[in-house]
Amino acid sequence: MANTVVAAGELERLAREALARNGVPEVVAADVARILVLGDLFGIHTHGVQRVPEYLSRVRAAGIDPTAEIVVRRLAPGVTSTEGGNGLGPAVGMRTLRSTMECARETGVGVGFARGSNHFGAVMPYSFLAAEEGFASIICSNATTTMAPWGGREARVGNSPFAIGAPCPGGEPIILDVALSVVARAKIRAAANKGEQIPDSWATDGAGLPTTDPHAALEGFLQPIGGHKGYGLAVMVDMLAGVLSGASFLTNVSSWSTHPGAAQGLGHFFVLIDTRRLGDSEWLAARVTEFAEILRSTPPADPAQPVRVPGEAELALYRSRLDEGVSLDVADVEALRGLAAPR
Amino acid sequence: MANTVVAAGELERLAREALARNGVPEVVAADVARILVLGDLFGIHTHGVQRVPEYLSRVRAAGIDPTAEIVVRRLAPGVTSTEGGNGLGPAVGMRTLRSTMECARETGVGVGFARGSNHFGAVMPYSFLAAEEGFASIICSNATTTMAPWGGREARVGNSPFAIGAPCPGGEPIILDVALSVVARAKIRAAANKGEQIPDSWATDGAGLPTTDPHAALEGFLQPIGGHKGYGLAVMVDMLAGVLSGASFLTNVSSWSTHPGAAQGLGHFFVLIDTRRLGDSEWLAARVTEFAEILRSTPPADPAQPVRVPGEAELALYRSRLDEGVSLDVADVEALRGLAAPR
Repeated sequence: MANTVVAAGELERLAREALARNGVPEVVAADVARILVLGDLFGIHTHGVQRVPEYLSRVRAAGIDPTAEIVVRRLAPGVTSTEGGNGLGPAVGMRTLRSTMECARETGVGVGFARGSNHFGAVMPYSFLAAEEGFASIICSNATTTMAPWGGREARVGNSPFAIGAPCPGGEPIILDVALSVVARAKIRAAANKGEQIPDSWATDGAGLPTTDPHAALEGFLQPIGGHKGYGLAVMVDMLAGVLSGASFLTNVSSWSTHPGAAQGLGHFFVLIDTRRLGDSEWLAARVTEFAEILRSTPPADPAQPVRVPGEAELALYRSRLDEGVSLDVADVEALRGLAAPR
Repeated sequence: MANTVVAAGELERLAREALARNGVPEVVAADVARILVLGDLFGIHTHGVQRVPEYLSRVRAAGIDPTAEIVVRRLAPGVTSTEGGNGLGPAVGMRTLRSTMECARETGVGVGFARGSNHFGAVMPYSFLAAEEGFASIICSNATTTMAPWGGREARVGNSPFAIGAPCPGGEPIILDVALSVVARAKIRAAANKGEQIPDSWATDGAGLPTTDPHAALEGFLQPIGGHKGYGLAVMVDMLAGVLSGASFLTNVSSWSTHPGAAQGLGHFFVLIDTRRLGDSEWLAARVTEFAEILRSTPPADPAQPVRVPGEAELALYRSRLDEGVSLDVADVEALRGLAAPR
């Protein structure tokens, strides 16, 4: 497919207008556009503006209420709970991020729980915005169940995204944003299309047994990283983001592909730590910089592939795309322009 | 090796006396014994009372100061920082756990950083004690560097332990406690002894390349779970427990096997959330119980191996060992009795 380059500001305006012209209030559209465009800037296109038509189709199916009132309650000096009211996920996420930052500014640490939410985009944008304001973060969301529990043969765990980030005053933050499967399903589909075998660590067949056949794998389940360890991590993400938040969890989360008109009831979890309480910015910058240097200066196994720190590739792309624009599939940009056009 | 069974209370008394008779103040000895015996009760013997002689040998080498004053400062209403003064790790850990619980009782969430510490035992005991008091927890520690960064060929990252836990009022908590390597080094040593090959996902050789030869693996590095994902998780644990805490981090952590007389400068990180702020105990118990039931009732791939929830095996062992005593290597118990005997 052909690509086209769009300036970051123009992309955000387009996404905002596409949403606003289709029933999404301006303030909600602004939050959603911000998170999705950050996804594209980091190169996470699966969680970028290509989600706009998808989000709007769920709005049309009455599966998401873009006008939902998002209500934040403070449960304790450092704890907030956001009731998303089945609103657009990134709007619920941004509202929770802001209220958790408020708490963390007062008490040094804030925890924010969100429920009644939907797909909230990639996690890295939230960690990045938190780092820009000086907060270290642990952020995660639960998700539709697509993985089998370790040793099981039925999808009962979400491939939940999980991020940990820390700011580096005057420099680049370090941000890890991972899902807990060994690979994404798309990689198995690619192997199937090329007629190639896959490593037996990627997926199980429908009976829950490891397989090297990509077709059997597509009928089965993604394997979590480290077997029972990744299973455990995925489970505990849902404990934090689903159970403790008051959201739906595990198989109680409705699948938006099979039930586009039903509320998903997703939950999110934010811990933010105000790093200014720990030391001054010179102290932190010196430590994070030394930390990154120790890792980057490791002798590489392949001299052509230097060791990187988490988030390094995404943040480098972000800087270059802010200057040079975002390269996107023409069809995705055209879809956005169509939605954004006055009628 | 022959095993012997010791009652849990007797084991704790023995560990406490072994420490107290060898220069460790009573209050410190009590905390250390508590954490190590919990390790044994959970079946994590590598982090159980067999560590007592090891800890004491470091005390004799002046590598640990058992009489160190452990000082907790409150940096913000929800944030504490513990200066361990190179004291015994479990004493620093327990002090940080208690002060973080105090914060979390007041503000709903507390974060505790510790520095100037040493090996603090397994993480599960802290998560368990937190859960007993109604706190959900995220707890981790950095460690001596034993893993190569992803794509590197020099040990610059610790195989840091990481735990997430949540209480279930009236029932068993759910606690995940994992290190971030695919397997422990002991498993590779066992394969070498049996003359067996190992999966190429377990370790790299000294050049940083995946290997199926256990001997080459023992000269190389453990692989993190999920490749770059586990590497990233291990790195971010050190960011939280090492960099933000003011502790040593990465290769700045001194190795106690090569420099037993040097302070390690380890750091720990605790986030505790007071679940009583989120809902009443019936609400939480019902949700956590349903969560566990959904996972346990998953059809298993192997009918003889039902699906479990994180921590289930360790907590079952804990209950049975509280009743029936702890089965331990005779030599370990004899060593402890020797250290505990009056002179």
